[in-house]
Amino acid sequence: MNPVEEYPFIVQPFEVDFRGKLTFPLLVNKLLNAAGHHADNRGFGMRDINKVNRSWVLFKISLDLTRCPKEREEIKVETWIEGLLRTFTQRNFAISDMEGNALGYARTVWAMIDTETRRPVNLMEYGIDQFIHQKDCPVEKGGKIALIDDVEAQESFTIKYSDVDINQHLNSAKYVEHIFDAFTLDEIKRHNLIKRFEIEYVEECRYGENVYIYKKEVEPHDFIIILKKENGSVACKSRILFSE
Amino acid sequence: MNPVEEYPFIVQPFEVDFRGKLTFPLLVNKLLNAAGHHADNRGFGMRDINKVNRSWVLFKISLDLTRCPKEREEIKVETWIEGLLRTFTQRNFAISDMEGNALGYARTVWAMIDTETRRPVNLMEYGIDQFIHQKDCPVEKGGKIALIDDVEAQESFTIKYSDVDINQHLNSAKYVEHIFDAFTLDEIKRHNLIKRFEIEYVEECRYGENVYIYKKEVEPHDFIIILKKENGSVACKSRILFSE
Repeated sequence: MNPVEEYPFIVQPFEVDFRGKLTFPLLVNKLLNAAGHHADNRGFGMRDINKVNRSWVLFKISLDLTRCPKEREEIKVETWIEGLLRTFTQRNFAISDMEGNALGYARTVWAMIDTETRRPVNLMEYGIDQFIHQKDCPVEKGGKIALIDDVEAQESFTIKYSDVDINQHLNSAKYVEHIFDAFTLDEIKRHNLIKRFEIEYVEECRYGENVYIYKKEVEPHDFIIILKKENGSVACKSRILFSE
Repeated sequence: MNPVEEYPFIVQPFEVDFRGKLTFPLLVNKLLNAAGHHADNRGFGMRDINKVNRSWVLFKISLDLTRCPKEREEIKVETWIEGLLRTFTQRNFAISDMEGNALGYARTVWAMIDTETRRPVNLMEYGIDQFIHQKDCPVEKGGKIALIDDVEAQESFTIKYSDVDINQHLNSAKYVEHIFDAFTLDEIKRHNLIKRFEIEYVEECRYGENVYIYKKEVEPHDFIIILKKENGSVACKSRILFSE
């Protein structure tokens, strides 16, 4: 089986934002769905590992974008496993239009956990190594995202029905939606493009929890957004770099 | 061109709720996207009419469901125009699995408006009549949804980036998401199925507006949900009937 798989999709009318472009949270959603299918088709997806009390946990996304897909455009996402360590695996993505022009690339880091002990398991037993593949994926290496301790919470939200996955946790794509909802349309309009997006998932958030959003423009066009739980612990750290 | 068109889709991992079923708001989203493609392909979709300062406005959805699509299931939505009046058109939907078993049916009512005057235009000029088609669509005729004046607002939300369409209005599918988010997981878990969903769109909601949610179980398993704007005017009325 080919280590790289391709997932085409058409940007639907109800998937675009006020600019007529695919909303950024939904772009991330498309990547995660591609990852799900790729893993399922190779026997190490949620479908199979859930049966033996295992689950994938996403730790990090780094995404560089040169153009945002627009309404009705046909786009393809390619995904493959670049590397495998005992408790981590790196999955990459290429996003392109149907003429083969690159729109962006992403790198993600995952672990598999035992759903009872919540501890990472040894990834060497799942036959993932046979699919490891090297392919161009020019995403700048991001450093650790800094905490921002000198700002007040901008707003908060409560985790609801449409936010949660089958484990009743805030789903990975919905973190991104809440992060982007912390920006006004004017802030998004001022910039042409989201050039870079990074997120580090730190702690799971459960249904009904209140989550607080902290946001700061640390350099011009460069934002850090932190989600914190009621008790002050960090749920995720994120960075958005807009073009000028 | 065939008056009925068929849109298949696969329920994606990040489209399911805590029960592993397609979230109801996303089911509505799939219907609206099918409507968009069907109209675009026949020359009276947003793509063409926006160029002449026209826009479709959705007035009403009535949906009867017998089963909810589950994760990874392949589903198809068929849509067609059942009727056309001077200022209204009725579009129907059939939802079924790949073996052809019906999962549900929906009826919707639309008008086309002039985006400058906000007034309905004469639908007879758009060649829609040639696609009128009769096909079985067993959806119970719902009455007017009653207002509920004896309850306090349960909660409120502010309209954000991911809520709005290209006109910076709350998009029709996002109304449904906010309505379902007014239910706890326990309320949804207590029932097997959403048997019936109705929504009447009354007034547009703009980016940045605060919207208040009123909800009441008027009969056992039968809920009315009203969204109101800051000034007290009704934005939409909705009814959800769960199975026992």
